[in-house]
Amino acid sequence: MYHAVIMAGGSGTRLWPLSRSQRPKQALRLVGDRTLFQLALDRLAPLFTQQRTYVVTKAEYVAPLAEQMPDLPRANFIVEPEGRGTAPAIGLAAMHLRRRDPEAVMAVLTADHYIANTVEFREILKSAQGLAKAGHLVTLGIRPSTPSTGYGYIHHGRPWADVDGRPVFQVAGFVEKPDLPTATQMVRSGEYSWNAGMFIWQAKRILDELARQMPAFYGQLLQIETALDRADYTATIQRLWPQVAEQTIDYGVMEGAYDVVVIPAQMGWADVGNWSSLFEVLPVDTAGNVFTGPHVALDTRDTLVVSGKRLVATIGIEHLVIVETEDALLICPRDREQEVRTIVKHLKQNGQTQWI
Amino acid sequence: MYHAVIMAGGSGTRLWPLSRSQRPKQALRLVGDRTLFQLALDRLAPLFTQQRTYVVTKAEYVAPLAEQMPDLPRANFIVEPEGRGTAPAIGLAAMHLRRRDPEAVMAVLTADHYIANTVEFREILKSAQGLAKAGHLVTLGIRPSTPSTGYGYIHHGRPWADVDGRPVFQVAGFVEKPDLPTATQMVRSGEYSWNAGMFIWQAKRILDELARQMPAFYGQLLQIETALDRADYTATIQRLWPQVAEQTIDYGVMEGAYDVVVIPAQMGWADVGNWSSLFEVLPVDTAGNVFTGPHVALDTRDTLVVSGKRLVATIGIEHLVIVETEDALLICPRDREQEVRTIVKHLKQNGQTQWI
Repeated sequence: MYHAVIMAGGSGTRLWPLSRSQRPKQALRLVGDRTLFQLALDRLAPLFTQQRTYVVTKAEYVAPLAEQMPDLPRANFIVEPEGRGTAPAIGLAAMHLRRRDPEAVMAVLTADHYIANTVEFREILKSAQGLAKAGHLVTLGIRPSTPSTGYGYIHHGRPWADVDGRPVFQVAGFVEKPDLPTATQMVRSGEYSWNAGMFIWQAKRILDELARQMPAFYGQLLQIETALDRADYTATIQRLWPQVAEQTIDYGVMEGAYDVVVIPAQMGWADVGNWSSLFEVLPVDTAGNVFTGPHVALDTRDTLVVSGKRLVATIGIEHLVIVETEDALLICPRDREQEVRTIVKHLKQNGQTQWI
Repeated sequence: MYHAVIMAGGSGTRLWPLSRSQRPKQALRLVGDRTLFQLALDRLAPLFTQQRTYVVTKAEYVAPLAEQMPDLPRANFIVEPEGRGTAPAIGLAAMHLRRRDPEAVMAVLTADHYIANTVEFREILKSAQGLAKAGHLVTLGIRPSTPSTGYGYIHHGRPWADVDGRPVFQVAGFVEKPDLPTATQMVRSGEYSWNAGMFIWQAKRILDELARQMPAFYGQLLQIETALDRADYTATIQRLWPQVAEQTIDYGVMEGAYDVVVIPAQMGWADVGNWSSLFEVLPVDTAGNVFTGPHVALDTRDTLVVSGKRLVATIGIEHLVIVETEDALLICPRDREQEVRTIVKHLKQNGQTQWI
């Protein structure tokens, strides 16, 4: 059977002040009236029943996410005691799936990306399923629109097949987040895709790779598995998980894995990881502005204003990010929005937890 | 008797979005917990009883202002049907005062200025009272701290007297709001004060000047006076007032008046007419910022943030004015805040009256 596994453990600190410790990024309505989590599940619904849709997240996010999708079985929430990177999260999900369905094929997907062409997205997932069934590790590659330094890249190897009219490449290698000259060169070559963290494979196949490449973690995973049907499952994972080494699936597994292929996907994909990313998914006016609420803008350019019912009046500003919520307001230049993390850190240090 | 007349008819559009049509500038708490109107009356209280304190304002502002000073007699609100400039407003007040007290000396004062040294302010008002009783038209001059182009200037003539240890000068002339080179030259000469619109004189004396220099208006004023004790007073002033020519006291009377003197006043005076003026009256941090509410500021300079309970987080900005209220938010550079009027005009044109 084909299962969807939504990675939904991120907090989305870069989307502060809208994202909060009790209101993670996935629970935000950034694009229209549905939350990112709801949008992620909506686009999967035609392909995966709710019974075959799983969510990997932190304990504290189960309630806010379950509330948004009340029909999703609670047993399908796979809970990490704490985030240890994507490799452990995927490993845990694969272990759960293999237990329920030894032949499980799993699509590892995200809740913080926007996909405009959901039909194409599902078609690609179907093609990928066939490849995964045959034992391949499939990644989806995103055609780069800019030489971004914020993503890892996948180096296409030789054309390997044509599946349902889509070219599939062997993977020549994974590249960490590059510097700008490297990114520019890679994008120019046409041989690279962005790595968006979407993978399709058999649960048993990725577990075999984990056993081979991350044996310590795999051992811990087996210990957790033995507790799966026992009353002390939660106690077991809570004891073992903090000892798990942090690792990403890219470095922990993909770089050294056998038989990795990439399907370049053109489906209107956009990351919604920071404020500037909203320029990709929301309507931009002729002056380059994005407004989500009532506004009067004089001589205002390249500015993002995320607001609710309040009127936002701007005069003579450009290249700013302005986000206002019930209890907080953020103003910073677009090219410094990564420092939003510093604000949150500062609030934490000062015990001002009401704003975190 | 000595009477205080507070000019409180201005709307304060430049202080939008805090000032609104139903919440004029005088009703704002910009400096501490008291409104500008309350502060104006507080500093006069040791010198003028509430019985001898008058307020000239528009009908629609009577309620919000009276609410702040419940003990002020309602009969002491002198209501203009609409603003026609300072000359008609002062003339109307003088007419009312002369009727109640033919020997009235009136101090024409403002509700939108901040005065740090209120003891000195009252001492100067006492000195001015003596000069006014003797028939002089007294103006208070403010020593210029910058070559501002936003004020009129008073040119000091020859030193004329020393009253209670304070030098008093004859007035050589009034200068309209100058351009920057002229202002710079005037300030450098040391012979000029800012004209802050504060005057002390006998009611009958200023009415004589109005009769001589603005005879048409004086005629209208007499018509209104004849209705003073009649039931049709309100109807009479509402009929005549729209016909009154707009005029300021400076150009309508002071420039051509006899026997005008100026007392240079050093009392920590500051205009509170626009957002930047708050840099004069509120604590400024080492980076040149003023904050009125909770904030986290990274690399933020020369910025004013007027806020309530909401947290305001700023990163990498400078020279901005940020004002947030329950229902609106303003962001603009300090040197463009005069365009706030354009915002209000725009809202009016679009019928978005809830924000005006």
